[in-house]
Amino acid sequence: MKTECSNADNRGSVLSLFFEPKTVAIVGSFREGFFGGYVAIKSLMEAGFTGTVYPVNRNYTEVLGWKSYPSLSDIDGSVDLVIVIINSKGVFDVVEEACRKGIRAAVVVSDGFAERDRSGAVLQNELVALAKERGIRIVGPNTAGVVSSWEGFNPCPYDAGYYRLKQGSVAICSQSGMTNPQAFPYPASRLGISRICDLGNKCDVDECDLLDYLENDARTTVVSIYLEGVADGKRFLETAERVARKKPLLVLKSGRTAEGARASASHTGSMAVNDMTFDAACRQAGILRVDEFADLFDIPKIFSMQPSIKGNRFGMVSYTGGMGVMAIDRGASYGIVPASLSGKTSAFLDSFFPGLGTNPVDIGPMAVSIKNFREVFPQIEIAVATDPEVDCILNVLWCDIRGESSRAYLEGFSRIREVCDKPVVSWMYGPNVEICSRIAAQVEELGFPCFISSERAMKAIGMAWTYELFRRKLVA
Amino acid sequence: MKTECSNADNRGSVLSLFFEPKTVAIVGSFREGFFGGYVAIKSLMEAGFTGTVYPVNRNYTEVLGWKSYPSLSDIDGSVDLVIVIINSKGVFDVVEEACRKGIRAAVVVSDGFAERDRSGAVLQNELVALAKERGIRIVGPNTAGVVSSWEGFNPCPYDAGYYRLKQGSVAICSQSGMTNPQAFPYPASRLGISRICDLGNKCDVDECDLLDYLENDARTTVVSIYLEGVADGKRFLETAERVARKKPLLVLKSGRTAEGARASASHTGSMAVNDMTFDAACRQAGILRVDEFADLFDIPKIFSMQPSIKGNRFGMVSYTGGMGVMAIDRGASYGIVPASLSGKTSAFLDSFFPGLGTNPVDIGPMAVSIKNFREVFPQIEIAVATDPEVDCILNVLWCDIRGESSRAYLEGFSRIREVCDKPVVSWMYGPNVEICSRIAAQVEELGFPCFISSERAMKAIGMAWTYELFRRKLVA
Repeated sequence: MKTECSNADNRGSVLSLFFEPKTVAIVGSFREGFFGGYVAIKSLMEAGFTGTVYPVNRNYTEVLGWKSYPSLSDIDGSVDLVIVIINSKGVFDVVEEACRKGIRAAVVVSDGFAERDRSGAVLQNELVALAKERGIRIVGPNTAGVVSSWEGFNPCPYDAGYYRLKQGSVAICSQSGMTNPQAFPYPASRLGISRICDLGNKCDVDECDLLDYLENDARTTVVSIYLEGVADGKRFLETAERVARKKPLLVLKSGRTAEGARASASHTGSMAVNDMTFDAACRQAGILRVDEFADLFDIPKIFSMQPSIKGNRFGMVSYTGGMGVMAIDRGASYGIVPASLSGKTSAFLDSFFPGLGTNPVDIGPMAVSIKNFREVFPQIEIAVATDPEVDCILNVLWCDIRGESSRAYLEGFSRIREVCDKPVVSWMYGPNVEICSRIAAQVEELGFPCFISSERAMKAIGMAWTYELFRRKLVA
Repeated sequence: MKTECSNADNRGSVLSLFFEPKTVAIVGSFREGFFGGYVAIKSLMEAGFTGTVYPVNRNYTEVLGWKSYPSLSDIDGSVDLVIVIINSKGVFDVVEEACRKGIRAAVVVSDGFAERDRSGAVLQNELVALAKERGIRIVGPNTAGVVSSWEGFNPCPYDAGYYRLKQGSVAICSQSGMTNPQAFPYPASRLGISRICDLGNKCDVDECDLLDYLENDARTTVVSIYLEGVADGKRFLETAERVARKKPLLVLKSGRTAEGARASASHTGSMAVNDMTFDAACRQAGILRVDEFADLFDIPKIFSMQPSIKGNRFGMVSYTGGMGVMAIDRGASYGIVPASLSGKTSAFLDSFFPGLGTNPVDIGPMAVSIKNFREVFPQIEIAVATDPEVDCILNVLWCDIRGESSRAYLEGFSRIREVCDKPVVSWMYGPNVEICSRIAAQVEELGFPCFISSERAMKAIGMAWTYELFRRKLVA
């Protein structure tokens, strides 16, 4: 059954039913509230889903304008996907009915299965047996579900307060609801999303099935995945390596320690693998193993928004000398070294202000001294970005409360966009977080990713370089 | 001269003139703008400074209501501190005049000294010789200056858009302007501050002088310091160890790598020490060495807002099981282990919801199932916080957009405040960053620090435990 998803052509993949359904049945309670079937339909509508929705509940005739059906069997047309949000005890019957109806994909949001207790584990085993026997694929149980931004498909069962996700090419996968819209502030992160999937207890569809699908998903160019354990270590590494050859794959795996692994087992019932073995295997397979939750969401930006990195020499344009030293330290841990600017660039920069022509380029003293910073900054940024001795650029830029420096930065970013084919990452800092966020959003609109610290921006460069080295090894 | 500041009684310390001046002369241009003497006086006034300000500039008769003087000598009364914000070439003469006037403390904001070029280094050497000969103490040059929140003393020469800092007991020191109000969003961080000091090029007053002062500063209970290098490694470690015995001292030292050290030398002209030696010495001396810029600002909260930690067993109340596993992994790196709840607590929790009585306590499934979460949550929080098997508490709490869960949390925090003598740290997460920030601010108003991630909250616990172990070694 699992091999169904390993075909190179995604059109045949059953998993496309989860991410690109045209017809969706939602079995649940439709009381208004912050959680449940009502919210799932509301989310779909607000997200701009253009497919057909079938609410299923015998107590309703209509939900948010959609005709409601007493049961799945009562639906006339075919159904690509059923989303089940009812008490765990009733799930088996609904999924069995779905099988009878010819439905091939089910998201079981309901909890109270293997993660809860022994009787829940029994319910889950019955579900697994049903899936094996009847060929229906199940995401979950105990999941916050799936999202596809391009299709306007966001059946989030919790009210996140926002419904449309920024369309992009990053897939976020997890074994936890923590990466779904109700838990993570996607709008504030400005991350462009292709798919989101919480595998939950992964009783059937697991990380390998998902990676098989994402490998060939044209919408997805970068994959982030959070795992507490892997069902089949060998298969995971084979699958992940195949994905990593095509697109960057970031993996955050918890359960590193004995205590963590035990907790993981009790949380989702998944098995842990020896962490050091896993770590070594990841390096071998070109998997970018990360160690912080935030890594899943901001590191992908350098891959989805920027060209690949061709070398390990970073140029830095910084409003503050202190951050330059820290960035150099941080870079060293990824094999990233400060570039020596070419004589031409150096002389050009020195012509604006004494001492400016040294990397890291400390623009702070100049900025308070000259009157035409807005004209000068773009020239400096272009000079550093186009220097052949520089492979990537880290900007650390102060956003004053009047927005004067910011105007210079935006002008600079607009102009380097036309001349620079290297990764450019930035940290916009300052005394007012709203102003910094606004400027960072504008910089990202121009195509250049911003990070919440200089360290995180450098980490993105380091990950890009790690991936580039892996790709070179493949070609060699 | 330097020994002046090593007296145990701070009243005699010359450095108190920098942080608690009653009369301040500001030599600079007073044009309105985003930087300079005008802004420094505006900042002082808005911050509520109650001392006397003497603007010094022969082109003005009055600045922001304060009579302006042509020169320092023209001021009638005595002056505790002079702040110099003029072109580097004129600084020597002003400081010399300050000496003649009997002023014993000068902050030289001006840049263009050793950090710039050779001629700047000559100017700096002249300044150092003057200080040595005449006994005036100098902070800087190339500094954003000093701040004392309790005294309303904030002469920030850049317009930060805010002027009053939240009064607290954390001192933030640096060799960079990055920790001063114009660069760091103190209001958003909600950090309670005692002093801020940018040592700049530290031509005279250095980190040791500053630590000598802060050691005996009653306003300060925690010290964070960013250093690129130390002038005298032996003296620094002796001083730092003495401080660490009295209050937690967090040190972020850059220039760890050879490249970083070189950049540091060119940035502020300070010498670097061998990093591994420094690291070992820090551990020995009880100094909490940190590795990220953000550490300087949020880790201190656990020390300034919470009781000391008595053991290494953490209890966790989490809306999400996934974060529990990650927290356990993270904790292990600091020697923090998950507590086994006592039978009594466990049974009590299980009575609310099946499976709840296991640490990490996963409240998510219960929260969507029960109707009286607001009544139940505080009881759960109290049960975990008062369990004798638990030494500290990590909360990972989802903030829904309707604020319903938040009300339960605030009720819980209000109540544990009265019964819990253990550190409690929290991460408030959710789909809306403004809502999360607002709830976090309310939680901090109740006295419990909030962090921007589960990892950072656990790092704070780890640092608290590291410090506790150091203190125990001292007593033993």
